[in-house]
Amino acid sequence: MQFVPTILCGGVGSRLWPISRQHHPKPFIRLSDGQSLLQKAMLRGAKLDGAIEVLTVSNRELLFKLEDEYREVNHAQIDTSFILEPFGKNTAAAIACAALHIADVHGPATILLILPADHLISNQAAFEQATKQAIHLANDNRLVTFGIKPDCPQTAYGYIEASKNNVLRFIEKPSREKAQAYFESGKFLWNSGMFCFKASTMITALREHCPDILSATQRCIEQSPLVKGRSFSQLALDAASFDLIRDESIDFAVMEKASNVAVVPCDIGWSDIGSWDAFSELLDGDENGNRIDGHAITHHSANCYIKSDSRIVGAVGLNDLIIVDTPDALLVADKNRSQDVKHIFSALKLQNHDVHKNHTTVHRPWGTYTILQESDNFKIKRIEVKPGASLSLQMHHHRSEHWIVVSGMARVVNGSEEIFVRVNESTYIPAGHQHRLENPGLLNLVMIEVQSGQYLGEDDIVRFSDVYGRA
Amino acid sequence: MQFVPTILCGGVGSRLWPISRQHHPKPFIRLSDGQSLLQKAMLRGAKLDGAIEVLTVSNRELLFKLEDEYREVNHAQIDTSFILEPFGKNTAAAIACAALHIADVHGPATILLILPADHLISNQAAFEQATKQAIHLANDNRLVTFGIKPDCPQTAYGYIEASKNNVLRFIEKPSREKAQAYFESGKFLWNSGMFCFKASTMITALREHCPDILSATQRCIEQSPLVKGRSFSQLALDAASFDLIRDESIDFAVMEKASNVAVVPCDIGWSDIGSWDAFSELLDGDENGNRIDGHAITHHSANCYIKSDSRIVGAVGLNDLIIVDTPDALLVADKNRSQDVKHIFSALKLQNHDVHKNHTTVHRPWGTYTILQESDNFKIKRIEVKPGASLSLQMHHHRSEHWIVVSGMARVVNGSEEIFVRVNESTYIPAGHQHRLENPGLLNLVMIEVQSGQYLGEDDIVRFSDVYGRA
Repeated sequence: MQFVPTILCGGVGSRLWPISRQHHPKPFIRLSDGQSLLQKAMLRGAKLDGAIEVLTVSNRELLFKLEDEYREVNHAQIDTSFILEPFGKNTAAAIACAALHIADVHGPATILLILPADHLISNQAAFEQATKQAIHLANDNRLVTFGIKPDCPQTAYGYIEASKNNVLRFIEKPSREKAQAYFESGKFLWNSGMFCFKASTMITALREHCPDILSATQRCIEQSPLVKGRSFSQLALDAASFDLIRDESIDFAVMEKASNVAVVPCDIGWSDIGSWDAFSELLDGDENGNRIDGHAITHHSANCYIKSDSRIVGAVGLNDLIIVDTPDALLVADKNRSQDVKHIFSALKLQNHDVHKNHTTVHRPWGTYTILQESDNFKIKRIEVKPGASLSLQMHHHRSEHWIVVSGMARVVNGSEEIFVRVNESTYIPAGHQHRLENPGLLNLVMIEVQSGQYLGEDDIVRFSDVYGRA
Repeated sequence: MQFVPTILCGGVGSRLWPISRQHHPKPFIRLSDGQSLLQKAMLRGAKLDGAIEVLTVSNRELLFKLEDEYREVNHAQIDTSFILEPFGKNTAAAIACAALHIADVHGPATILLILPADHLISNQAAFEQATKQAIHLANDNRLVTFGIKPDCPQTAYGYIEASKNNVLRFIEKPSREKAQAYFESGKFLWNSGMFCFKASTMITALREHCPDILSATQRCIEQSPLVKGRSFSQLALDAASFDLIRDESIDFAVMEKASNVAVVPCDIGWSDIGSWDAFSELLDGDENGNRIDGHAITHHSANCYIKSDSRIVGAVGLNDLIIVDTPDALLVADKNRSQDVKHIFSALKLQNHDVHKNHTTVHRPWGTYTILQESDNFKIKRIEVKPGASLSLQMHHHRSEHWIVVSGMARVVNGSEEIFVRVNESTYIPAGHQHRLENPGLLNLVMIEVQSGQYLGEDDIVRFSDVYGRA
C-alpha cells in the first residue's frame, strides 16, 4: 500500500544543549556512525515498501540544512517535499498542514506515517512490522498511534492504556508511583509521538474535534505558495495566516477525543534521546563505566560521560557526571539532573546570548563559516564553500576583507575585475567594493578571511544578487 | 641592615594544571588584581627596607618572561639579577648557587632572604615585622626559617616544633591524626620554605653537612659565565657541571642537620596556593557558595569554583566541583581531590602531549603568538610584537606566510625588499625567502599570519641573525 512518511522536524531539544542550538536543533546531532538523527528518521521512512516520497515539516530557515542532510544519504533518490513553517506551532498545526497538503497533492485516501525527526529506533525489522500493521489499520479509517512497550517506569512520557489495538485511554506524564504501577501492570504503553492515518481520516477528525484549527490551516495553505519541481515540492507557509492557527498538540486536539483511535503495541528499540543521560547510553563504557567521546584523562572517576571534539579533558574524582564541550560553551551536569539542562538553555535565551542560537560554525546555503577570533577591529573566519556554490554579490560599508585560499580554488569578482585565486594565493576586497565569491571547482574551497574595520557586524552587508533569493 | 631578597622560581605547580604548564608555571598565574604570584613575591621583597637588589633563581628558558613580569611592576627600579638554571635541581642547589654568588658579588656577610615565587602573603606589615626579626637572627649567624602558625590541621606541609625562636625538630608531612595533634598543641608551626641567613653562614653549613653539594656548586659557578650590566647581572649556570650537583632539598641537606637553625613564628596571611581548592578561596562566593571567574550559569549547584576565560559554562546539579577551562584543555575535579590534579598533568606528560607544556598562546622574547587553527596544510596564528621588538631574520623551506596587519605597524624585510605594512595591509612571504618582522612603532603590533604548505612544524626555520642570540 502506498503512503507518505512525514518527518516532523520541529523543536530545539534544549536538554541537549550545548550541541543542540536553536539554529542547529537536536535532529541535526550526529551519532558516532556519522549519521544525524534526522538522516536516520528520513531513511527509516524512505526504506519502507510503498513510500512514495518523504515529506518534511520544518522551519523554513532550516531548509538548506535539511536538503544537505538528505542529499548525503538519499542514495535511492526518493522524492523529498517540504512544508516550511515560518516559526514553530506545535504538532496539531504541523499535522493538519501535512494532511491537507497530501490530500491536495496525492489524493485524500493517501496514508501519512508521522515520524518525529529526533527519535532513534534500533530494530528496523520490528519497526517495519509495526508500520505494516499501522497502515492496515489506517486503511480502515483509524487514527493509529504507536505504543512502545515500557522497559522502565518512565515519568517523562505520556502513557496509553490499551487492549490489543484498542485505546482505552490516554494518560499525561504520570507521577513516579503511577508510572511504577503502569509499568508493572503490563497493560500500558508509552505514547511515542508516531502516528499513521489517511489524510481524509485526519481531516474529518480535525473538523469534528477542532474545526478552528482545520479552517485556519486551510486558509493558511490557500495563502501559501507551492513550488513544484520534478522530484520535490516546497510549500512555504504564509506567516500571517499561520500565526492564526491555534497552538496545540495533536494528542490534545484530536487523538484524546477521537473514537476511531487505534494503537499498535511495539517493541522496536525506541528512544527519544531526551537527555544527555540517554544520549550517553549509545556509547560503550570503559572498565569504570566512563563513556568517552574525545580525548579525556580520568582519575578516580566513574560512570561519567565526556564528549569533547577538540579540547583535552582532565577528570578528577568525578561520579555520574556529564561533560559536554563545544568551541564556545561547556556543560557540566549531574546525570540525575540531565533533564534540567533545558534551564541553562532558557537562561541563555533570556540573556539573548548567541550560544543558545548558533554554534561558532554557522551553516549557510553555500557552505559554512567558522569564527576563529573576534576583536574590536578585526575578525577572522574560516570559510568553506561547496563545489559549484556561490555567495551573493555583495558590498560592505565598514569593513575590508583579506582572503587567503588554503584549499581548493576560488573565482572572485572584485569591483570590475574577475580573477581566480588558487591555493596559497590571496586577494583584498576594500570596503565599498562590490564582490562575489564562488567555488567553480569540484572540491570544497577553504578560505581564511581576515576582516578589518571599525564595525564588523554581520548586518553590514548590501546584497545585489543572490542565487538563494536573499538579495 | 642590607640584604638580598632571593626569589626561588622553580617547579611547575602541576596541581594547578591546566592554567599552570611547564613553560608557564604556577608563579606566572595572574590573580584577579592582574598581578602574578611572581610579581607579588618580587614586590614583597623589593619593598623591604634594606633590600639592595632582587635576585631570582629560575630556569633559563623563563628569563625573558621573568624580565617582562618584573618590568611591569618594578616602578621603584630596584636592580634585578638572575641565576639561570639549565633545568630544575631542587632547593639545595638553587640556594647554594645563590649563597656563593651573593658572597662573590656583595661579600660573604651579605644576608639572603629566600622567598618562593609562588606563595601568597596577605599581611605585608606582619611579614615586614617577621623579616626584621629574621634578619636580626641571621646577623647572629643563625639559619632562619619562617614558621607559619597553623589555622587548620594541614597534612600537605612539613611542621616545625618550636620553642620561641629555637627549633626543637623538623617533621615531615604528617598523618591526619598527627596533624590534628600538632594543630591542637599550639607548639607546632608549618615549614613555609622561606629562609634567611648570611651567605657565609649557609656556605659554612653546606661545607659541614653536604660538602659534595658545596664543591659541585663551586665548580659549576666557576664554569658559568656572568654577564653584568649597570642594573642587572645574569649568571648562566653551565649545564654539564650543574648536572653533577646532587638533587636534594635544602631542608634535608642542611636545615634538619644544622644546630644553628632558628625559627621566626609568624601569622602573615600565608598560603602556598597548593591546589585549585586553595586558589578558589581568593574569590568571594555567591549565595550558593559558588565562586565564578568568567561567565557561568548555575542551576541547583553549590560550592563550586568555575574559571573560564572565554567559554560559557552551564552547571547543573553540581556540588563541590572545580571547573577550570582554557582554550585547549579543561579540568573538572572534585574539590576534595584537588591535590590529585597533578596525576592528570603527569599522564599528559607521559603521553608527551603539548598541553602539559604550552598554552595556545606562547610567549617569546619579542612578544606572543597564539595558534588559532591548525590543519594539515594550513595554520593560522595571531602574532603580537612588542614595541621596538624584532623577530629573527629567518627562512622556511616548506611554508609560505601571508601576513595581515590588524593593529599597529610592521617593518618587514622580505627577500631584498624592506617595506612598511600598515593596518589593513598585507604582505606575502614565499617559501625560501629570507624575512624579518619588526615593530618599529610605539604600540603593540598585531598581525594575523596564515601559513600554507605541506609541512608546518615550528622546526622548519633557518635563523640568520637574532637579537636574542637564537641564530
